[in-house]
Amino acid sequence: MSLTSFFSPTGIVIIGASHEPTKLGHGLAYNLARSNYAGAMHFVNPKGGKLFGQPIYTNIAEVPDPVDLAVVLTPAPTVPQTLRECAKRGILSAIILSGGFREVGPEGAALEAEVLAVAQEYGMRFMGPNCVGILNTHLPVDVTFLPPPGPLPGEIAFISHSGALCSAVVDWGSGQGYGFSHMISLGNQANINEADVLAPVADDRFTRVLAMYLESISNGQRFVQEASQVTRSKPIIVLKSGRSASGQRAAASHTGALAGQEHAVDAAFRRCGVIRANTSEELFDWARALAWCQPLKGRAISILTNAGGPGVTASDAVEANGLSLAELASETVTALRQILPSAASVRNPVDILASGSPELYASSLKILLDDPATDGVLVIILAPPTFSAGAVAKAMVPIIQSAAKPVIVALMGQRMTGEAAEHLRSAHIPEYCFTERAISAMAILAQRHEFLARADEKPVTLEVDPGAVRSLLDSKSASPADILAAYGIPTLPIRLASSPAQAAEVARQLGFPVVLKVASLDISHKSDVGGVLLNLADEAAVSQGFETVVANARRAMPEANILGVHVQRMLPAGQEVIVGAVQDPLFGPLVMFGSGGVEVEGLKDVAFALAPLTRSDAERMLESTWAGRKLRGFRNLPPADRAAVLDVLLRLAQLAADFPELPEIEINPLRVLADGQGAFAIDVR
Amino acid sequence: MSLTSFFSPTGIVIIGASHEPTKLGHGLAYNLARSNYAGAMHFVNPKGGKLFGQPIYTNIAEVPDPVDLAVVLTPAPTVPQTLRECAKRGILSAIILSGGFREVGPEGAALEAEVLAVAQEYGMRFMGPNCVGILNTHLPVDVTFLPPPGPLPGEIAFISHSGALCSAVVDWGSGQGYGFSHMISLGNQANINEADVLAPVADDRFTRVLAMYLESISNGQRFVQEASQVTRSKPIIVLKSGRSASGQRAAASHTGALAGQEHAVDAAFRRCGVIRANTSEELFDWARALAWCQPLKGRAISILTNAGGPGVTASDAVEANGLSLAELASETVTALRQILPSAASVRNPVDILASGSPELYASSLKILLDDPATDGVLVIILAPPTFSAGAVAKAMVPIIQSAAKPVIVALMGQRMTGEAAEHLRSAHIPEYCFTERAISAMAILAQRHEFLARADEKPVTLEVDPGAVRSLLDSKSASPADILAAYGIPTLPIRLASSPAQAAEVARQLGFPVVLKVASLDISHKSDVGGVLLNLADEAAVSQGFETVVANARRAMPEANILGVHVQRMLPAGQEVIVGAVQDPLFGPLVMFGSGGVEVEGLKDVAFALAPLTRSDAERMLESTWAGRKLRGFRNLPPADRAAVLDVLLRLAQLAADFPELPEIEINPLRVLADGQGAFAIDVR
Repeated sequence: MSLTSFFSPTGIVIIGASHEPTKLGHGLAYNLARSNYAGAMHFVNPKGGKLFGQPIYTNIAEVPDPVDLAVVLTPAPTVPQTLRECAKRGILSAIILSGGFREVGPEGAALEAEVLAVAQEYGMRFMGPNCVGILNTHLPVDVTFLPPPGPLPGEIAFISHSGALCSAVVDWGSGQGYGFSHMISLGNQANINEADVLAPVADDRFTRVLAMYLESISNGQRFVQEASQVTRSKPIIVLKSGRSASGQRAAASHTGALAGQEHAVDAAFRRCGVIRANTSEELFDWARALAWCQPLKGRAISILTNAGGPGVTASDAVEANGLSLAELASETVTALRQILPSAASVRNPVDILASGSPELYASSLKILLDDPATDGVLVIILAPPTFSAGAVAKAMVPIIQSAAKPVIVALMGQRMTGEAAEHLRSAHIPEYCFTERAISAMAILAQRHEFLARADEKPVTLEVDPGAVRSLLDSKSASPADILAAYGIPTLPIRLASSPAQAAEVARQLGFPVVLKVASLDISHKSDVGGVLLNLADEAAVSQGFETVVANARRAMPEANILGVHVQRMLPAGQEVIVGAVQDPLFGPLVMFGSGGVEVEGLKDVAFALAPLTRSDAERMLESTWAGRKLRGFRNLPPADRAAVLDVLLRLAQLAADFPELPEIEINPLRVLADGQGAFAIDVR
Repeated sequence: MSLTSFFSPTGIVIIGASHEPTKLGHGLAYNLARSNYAGAMHFVNPKGGKLFGQPIYTNIAEVPDPVDLAVVLTPAPTVPQTLRECAKRGILSAIILSGGFREVGPEGAALEAEVLAVAQEYGMRFMGPNCVGILNTHLPVDVTFLPPPGPLPGEIAFISHSGALCSAVVDWGSGQGYGFSHMISLGNQANINEADVLAPVADDRFTRVLAMYLESISNGQRFVQEASQVTRSKPIIVLKSGRSASGQRAAASHTGALAGQEHAVDAAFRRCGVIRANTSEELFDWARALAWCQPLKGRAISILTNAGGPGVTASDAVEANGLSLAELASETVTALRQILPSAASVRNPVDILASGSPELYASSLKILLDDPATDGVLVIILAPPTFSAGAVAKAMVPIIQSAAKPVIVALMGQRMTGEAAEHLRSAHIPEYCFTERAISAMAILAQRHEFLARADEKPVTLEVDPGAVRSLLDSKSASPADILAAYGIPTLPIRLASSPAQAAEVARQLGFPVVLKVASLDISHKSDVGGVLLNLADEAAVSQGFETVVANARRAMPEANILGVHVQRMLPAGQEVIVGAVQDPLFGPLVMFGSGGVEVEGLKDVAFALAPLTRSDAERMLESTWAGRKLRGFRNLPPADRAAVLDVLLRLAQLAADFPELPEIEINPLRVLADGQGAFAIDVR
């Protein structure tokens, strides 16, 4: 069932509207009444009467057409019956603001289940319960009980698991001069959850960015699917809290122990292009930049300032955020030199000095925006001694608005920069009072651009043999190595040979050099009896070696039952890494790459991604770990076969995606030989 | 010469005071005139006239008593002569605000050198040039040309290498409701630098915290010395910028390559208890908390909130900042339950719900402050629907002011929380609009307490033989191993034995098991000729082994000149770490500890500290690295001799501190055996 009635209702009934100004049911009705909502507006309360010039109906059945959305704020125990009456009246969409459900304990949870059952019986959809409602500043409509005034109209849609946060956020935003398109409080999400609202909110033409506060994700795979669609046109930023509570899943392997919920969330967000904010401040700092700025098409930025110190802190932030200072073209430097005083710095950061006029700021900004090496500009403004900061901002606004590159402002001060802030805010130019926050927002514009560049990349599909894996799984006797082999992941098979000729033939198939070990259940310390030969390089050596180990073993332990000789390829030394896959309960198949041995856990040198992988996913996993970076060689460590590791990662991801019934598979270590020599699963679980 | 005249001048002369309102020399005179400065105030300008009811003298010689501080704002080329005239008039302290010196290029630098020469000739001290001046809100005095209004009186002294930042900071602070005791712009620091002003500023009874913006440190060891004195009574926070510019020092060893400037700065700050802020926002967020709160005497905090969501983000921040949520005592839970509605959460975070009244906030806070497990409290306030946030804040102020534990407030909103902000600010209770910033400030209160607890700890002095090292260094033929041995660091000496009996005796001295290698310059691949025997466990085996290797070598290479047999202790396997020391050009001897092999550079798993070390320095180096943590054992990795590593670290630090002429010494690897078996330098450079 579509959610149209929630996002563009033709008529709204507030059930539980109240005369009494101290009641939430009054505030709710008041907000709707003053929201300039263009549809029909109805109130229901058993007490009857009139409210804001409208009649209050005493029961739902009386409510006249048009009405397709009920907003329910009646005591929790009455909610199931209220919903039934709505359904009978033909209202199939409801927002339940009432509290007293799952959040208060088992009794409330039972009541919530009852509400859900009613909705399912009648084919209804509902938001909440236990939420503050929703509002849309452009439709407009406001069915929240947030204390007025509501937010300014804006481009940010805020979707929240915390109702209280909505109230604080409206107030913050208004104080900081930015507004919202939507404010959606999801409450207990018994029926409609965060994934359901993504597409309808993104469809709104006024919304330029979706900012979310989430404490959990109801259905991981559905969220990824919906978010992946939305992020192609509009950015989503999420502050996902509850990191500290998530803990680690108990698991037998490194992969499982390390995956935890947070790694899976990070991997899922990366896959669907969702930007994860670490703090509340980042959520709204970044939302403004994404709502108001174009993407940053490269990572080289220029800094324009009228003071040296803040230029230095901004440069530090540039490096800390993975951006770089643009190398200005010589024409740029020449052009700046022509207009700036001789004591000014024409190197990046460009410092026009405290005497810099509004005109000088504006002309310098134009020159920097024209610089071919510059992808975006940070403008730092300290209230100049001889001009007003407002005049500086005003002079730059038209240039910034017509620029093809993003410009962000660090407006350093408060009272003396108030007028400048007004100019910038009304022109939708993001300003922050600290250079570090401004640069952090700039870096997000680059991240957004980079996501869009890879958004169409498809997961890699390699030629594999799922049929063989199916048979192995059905046979119940599958060895992990056989499963890997069916997906083209090189393992080190051990083969039994019962004669010198067979040993030579097996060795030829496995590849030289090989190791021979006498095969006998009776001999535990095989090397002590001369039962092991290493590094045999050709068929003749293997054939002769067979005789030698068998003879040695016979001589040492005449009574032992000797089955023949085990042949296994002998690998040269190499780098060792760990590659694993695990089925995440929320997001499904997840692939891991990291340092081999105990290091993977001790160092947390590990990267995760959702399976199957795109080529850039696999590349990123290598580049974001030391284990992966050192495959290229480091100091006296020679380069290893990086391509082979990428291939194993892609194949293991394909396996995990194809067989969700494989709960966990881990190659530890994967031995990576010299470049061109391959990578081999030494131990598999 | 003392800096008394800068910090409590008896009379001030402004040289370059101006009638013209657009000139900085006018603003400067105006600021002094309206600053309620109690001493004598004089103006000098060749044009003469009157200003603010005072005569303007046409030359310095005319200025009457009392006068002991000159504030100079004349064109750069006139400054040397101006200083000379000051000295002749008996004014030996000057603040040079004029620009046009080192910051504009070589010519300016020459002029600055001339100014310095004049000062040295006459025994003068001066601040600047190229600064905005200094002010003290309590003395009071203001000799800056910052645009009015000046800062509110407060407890934070701000000392800055950037003059422009002073202006922004005054404006920010006033807007955020906090003030300053001092504002000191150091400019080019030709004569007085950041270390010089620490003690005089800290002596001021109104100053509770020193906040600094530094782009460099002039004299590292002096800074450490001065700061160490100050931090025992008052905290110092530094935003040290220029990370991105600092680059890495070219060096032959890992220790040198890794040390870089930033590691040394971090190590120096840790030694002297200076708190390093990473961003401008942290600098002032933390300064307020340190100025206004008591130290946090443990890391367990309680959260009091009226909304669930912000409680969750605060809990995440608690974990991210190395704090923990207090386990509330059962009496605390009982007491809370008695006053809170049943739907409230009495577990930490304590959620009194949106209906929580000012009285409920106040009583709950009292209960939490009485909780024995709680070291400090974060109070989260969202504007409640039925009460004003101001009333909530007002009800809590007296409780917070009389509490023996720190309380910080996250005041979430802006317009609706303005009155609450006023109450808190005027009561000197730090409030932040985001939970994450509030918790970050709380963590700094813990860091401060922990520093004070270890501030009196002395560096460890072990029994060593500096005389032996002196002789070795003088002899010019010192081997690094001999130097380490003189400081009691176990190495693996190689001894030559010329007979079986001597070999047995040497082996007994070195400790069993040993390795024997034939000693001959003519034999390069000793094991190929049977010239190596491993793992000899007693004197008999060594004695017989001597005969064997010599015989083997003779047989294989009859023409070789055999000198005897090299005996070396053979170590069992163990963990390998790197330990190094380097002389930092700024801060002197610096010790490093980290992962052995190439990992130390690739992983940056490394810790630094200034030498010599206290025991907690050495402990921290181990605990802050994976190489150090895994010495306790990890999964299937057995515990190693951690105590032996601590001992080596302490001894190497003592060596580096005792012999600054040793530019660099590195043990890579240090083999760490099983617990109780010691740690041995395998390779030394």
